[in-house]
Amino acid sequence: MRLSRAFIPTLKEIPADAQVVSHQLLLRAGFIRQLGAGIYSYLPLAQRSLKKVERIVREEMDAIGAQEFFLPALHPAEIWKESGRWEVMGDNMFRLKDRKGGDYCLGMTHEEIFTSIARSEIRSYRELPQTWYQIQTKFRDEPRPKSGLLRVRQFTMKDSYSFDVDQAGLDVAFEKHRVAYHRVYSRCGLAFAAVDAHSGAMGGSKSTEFMVRTDAGEDNIAYCPSCDYAANVEKATSRVGLIADGPGLPAPEKFATPGVRTILDLEQPPYHVEAKRQLKTLVFVADGRTVIAVVRGDQEMHEAKLQTATGAQEIRPASVDEIVALLGARPGSLGAVGTSGKEVYLDTSLVGRKDMVTGANEDDHHLRGVDVDRDLAHARLADLRTVQASEGCPSCPGEIQVWKGLEVGHIFKLGTRYSESMGATVLGPDGKSTPIVMGSYGIGVERIMAAAIELHHDENGIVWPMSIAPYQVSLVALQMNDAAVVEAAEKLYAELGAAGIEVLFDDRDERAGVKFKDADLVGLPIRIAVGKKALAEGKVEWKLRRGGEVELVSVGEIAAKVRATVAELTPAAVEPRR
Amino acid sequence: MRLSRAFIPTLKEIPADAQVVSHQLLLRAGFIRQLGAGIYSYLPLAQRSLKKVERIVREEMDAIGAQEFFLPALHPAEIWKESGRWEVMGDNMFRLKDRKGGDYCLGMTHEEIFTSIARSEIRSYRELPQTWYQIQTKFRDEPRPKSGLLRVRQFTMKDSYSFDVDQAGLDVAFEKHRVAYHRVYSRCGLAFAAVDAHSGAMGGSKSTEFMVRTDAGEDNIAYCPSCDYAANVEKATSRVGLIADGPGLPAPEKFATPGVRTILDLEQPPYHVEAKRQLKTLVFVADGRTVIAVVRGDQEMHEAKLQTATGAQEIRPASVDEIVALLGARPGSLGAVGTSGKEVYLDTSLVGRKDMVTGANEDDHHLRGVDVDRDLAHARLADLRTVQASEGCPSCPGEIQVWKGLEVGHIFKLGTRYSESMGATVLGPDGKSTPIVMGSYGIGVERIMAAAIELHHDENGIVWPMSIAPYQVSLVALQMNDAAVVEAAEKLYAELGAAGIEVLFDDRDERAGVKFKDADLVGLPIRIAVGKKALAEGKVEWKLRRGGEVELVSVGEIAAKVRATVAELTPAAVEPRR
Repeated sequence: MRLSRAFIPTLKEIPADAQVVSHQLLLRAGFIRQLGAGIYSYLPLAQRSLKKVERIVREEMDAIGAQEFFLPALHPAEIWKESGRWEVMGDNMFRLKDRKGGDYCLGMTHEEIFTSIARSEIRSYRELPQTWYQIQTKFRDEPRPKSGLLRVRQFTMKDSYSFDVDQAGLDVAFEKHRVAYHRVYSRCGLAFAAVDAHSGAMGGSKSTEFMVRTDAGEDNIAYCPSCDYAANVEKATSRVGLIADGPGLPAPEKFATPGVRTILDLEQPPYHVEAKRQLKTLVFVADGRTVIAVVRGDQEMHEAKLQTATGAQEIRPASVDEIVALLGARPGSLGAVGTSGKEVYLDTSLVGRKDMVTGANEDDHHLRGVDVDRDLAHARLADLRTVQASEGCPSCPGEIQVWKGLEVGHIFKLGTRYSESMGATVLGPDGKSTPIVMGSYGIGVERIMAAAIELHHDENGIVWPMSIAPYQVSLVALQMNDAAVVEAAEKLYAELGAAGIEVLFDDRDERAGVKFKDADLVGLPIRIAVGKKALAEGKVEWKLRRGGEVELVSVGEIAAKVRATVAELTPAAVEPRR
Repeated sequence: MRLSRAFIPTLKEIPADAQVVSHQLLLRAGFIRQLGAGIYSYLPLAQRSLKKVERIVREEMDAIGAQEFFLPALHPAEIWKESGRWEVMGDNMFRLKDRKGGDYCLGMTHEEIFTSIARSEIRSYRELPQTWYQIQTKFRDEPRPKSGLLRVRQFTMKDSYSFDVDQAGLDVAFEKHRVAYHRVYSRCGLAFAAVDAHSGAMGGSKSTEFMVRTDAGEDNIAYCPSCDYAANVEKATSRVGLIADGPGLPAPEKFATPGVRTILDLEQPPYHVEAKRQLKTLVFVADGRTVIAVVRGDQEMHEAKLQTATGAQEIRPASVDEIVALLGARPGSLGAVGTSGKEVYLDTSLVGRKDMVTGANEDDHHLRGVDVDRDLAHARLADLRTVQASEGCPSCPGEIQVWKGLEVGHIFKLGTRYSESMGATVLGPDGKSTPIVMGSYGIGVERIMAAAIELHHDENGIVWPMSIAPYQVSLVALQMNDAAVVEAAEKLYAELGAAGIEVLFDDRDERAGVKFKDADLVGLPIRIAVGKKALAEGKVEWKLRRGGEVELVSVGEIAAKVRATVAELTPAAVEPRR
């Protein structure tokens, strides 16, 4: 492509509203433009990169025997009502009516649609296993779109679905996807970690997220460098030191705490109750039930963990009115002592603790001398606590780190969550009807492109991995008013093109400085400059965007060097460890 | 792909609700399934064909220098309000609100979005010409979805847009697209005609449709076999014989016609007024104005022609109340005599006619002795009449035929329709601001696939053109319980795959009859059968789906024969005549 004819609207300034690096660079280098909040137009450079990501994804999916479909984005409401998710998805789902008043939504994901096809068409276990995928536009009405392509309302996803007759089949499909995803990310030049994750609205028993470590990410990942333990903090556990308590009191004792509303208030004089000796009591609404959660005062409860514990599809903090209705007191004086008959969850780290302080369910009063095993015996034990850096690794004697991660994929063992609710069954080997065992697997296509930029850039622009660069070579003619330079550049452009190399040829009538600046910003892996001086000696300038010195290469050798370098710099797939 | 693992749910019966051939065969051969009215899931075979169509389209668009984008499907209402089409699109547009109550729609087409990008980013004529395209999902809330993939509510379209500084530039871009479209259709194996068409809601000065002749189509095409004149009847003209009238009366004369409501009524005794001596008067509402149209009694007015004449963006028949308010009478007694001051359009073929009969704008009364030039002098002349078969060709002495056509593409000279309403201007060579001159060009991807089936099938199934067949070869192992057969088939499957041939390998444990039936239904171009008997002589059976005898070919020669046949049967691009 000739830059003089290409549409690559680069910007000199960093757009004021772009915070994260990939957002800034995608705008500045002319890859994307915003159409509305969380809605972006992909210009030609972005489209070229995205098509390359898609091709890599497609190749790896085909390699594990997955078959490509293309399903509608417009879904009748009925099918989402069958699975129960028409309600669960809430405001995140774009809903609309057609001209006849029928209810529809825009697909956020396609478990329901693929399950409905399997239900209608597959009769016997002999037709299994099947793995089906598509690369398609998804719509989610994010409450707070931000960070360019990282949190958007319309995006491209490869989603696949496996159908097996039993759990062992699902395990195989899940493992195949794990390997395929490793290969995809490594081919796209992404360093990443596979982490244990919470399944959320998707349901199912186990899920693994693929995370790129970058401060642009919105997830917190607990990671142990000693043993490679890695989990989303939604799911991560850790070892915390034992705390020695005093004997406490024979029974909890109420005391007045006027004006005390927080853990911190109770740490102050005249109370002096250390946070780790307090119980923090929270109230949530889980699928319509009001539930109580108790964690240690100096720790944070993780909402996703409470959701897992309650088995709820949907969870939210209770309103003050709901709290008063349940416990008779307002936040600041809440406690779980004396709540038998209510649904109470207690963080496992509190087992055995004595002499604790908690709210008395009476405004401006607390209880002291609480013995957890004695006074909260009615509570169900659960892992509710958010792991924090420097706590002990749950798998080895090491210490947990917590870093920011950007999710670029998520794979789920769904089990029979959808096949049971929607009636997708097959006849098993024993002749009996059995629900299909499903998995679901997603990769965000734009996320991969943006994550690559977060990982590979410098102060001058993007540094593309060869495999997903929009073009492989920047060919810069330094003096467009010099006939010999133009002729040599044109010849090289034609020669590289004929060799199947993707070249962006800067044939604009601009100064060398402007051209080099744009080349750095757009960030193609190889830069070749044709200039008067070197050309007089039969040479052109060679430079790799990722670093290194300018090198003079003879015109006759340049094409071979490009071919060899393209091959060398295209990241190979890395197979995961078992 | 092994058929034993592939998901190809073929049906024995023709589904009851499928009328047109492509719909029947796409369902029966396991290509598509319906999710809702006008909403289809594409199963793996369809997806493979569609991807091939897309690749051909992409190659031809790239060849004319078009650059690929990918724009959002979700559009803020504001941008459609700027062009005025938020109102024009009416119920055909899917509309929705986001969680904050903002108005959005699903993209039916992308003139507005591309124009907004050009408006923001292009400053000077030096940055022109540009041609931008995308291959993307469109949404239209069709009132009556039907015919499988022919009339749907969600579909894939290649849409492109050209941006030039002047009309001469647009003419070049339009011609490039015309040539590219010819190449696309001929490479996809479609016989087609390029016809003159009405621009409709798109606006602009000229448009050409690409039509495949098939009774599954919903358009009527006027075609002259003598000179290749071709136009959609929305736009077509023709020569009609002159009619000799009597001298008529000095002024129109009212007479009573009790109960007469139609042209036919007036042809009956006691009136005996031939239809071609009657004036048919119709009332429409064009962009809110009530307008009158007059055509000859034995002819049909074409609504699109009236729309063109009025210059309206939107047109609809007037209600009875609107008619009575305008003319004081009800349908059946309407006329345009005495309506000066009102907006009246008169079909050009009525010029010079005398002694005509028309409604008197008084219920149960008509006028006779009407002299068109005298009594309808206030009317504007326009081409309103629908061309009919056997009328004279407007370009040569030949005779018009009318056939059914299926639209597979439409290209428009938009001019400045969008750039003016949306303020997309550039500085011209003279330093003055000038609106960008635009064209818009669309190809329906699924329509191409369905049209190929309408043109290429027989009573046993689809007969795919090689270029867009889901696979190139059906490899059928006739006896899966014979080790030699299995071994030879497996070897051939591997050998063809290694040669880059796309093979669907029927390795199912089924009878030969079932396998051949499915192979015919799915319709891959080459069928190779490996059977015990021929194999004993080192041969396999060869047959082309499009016809011809079964041939025995030696195992050693088969791969070369496949390669040669794939090349030979892949339709070449045909360049259009000037």
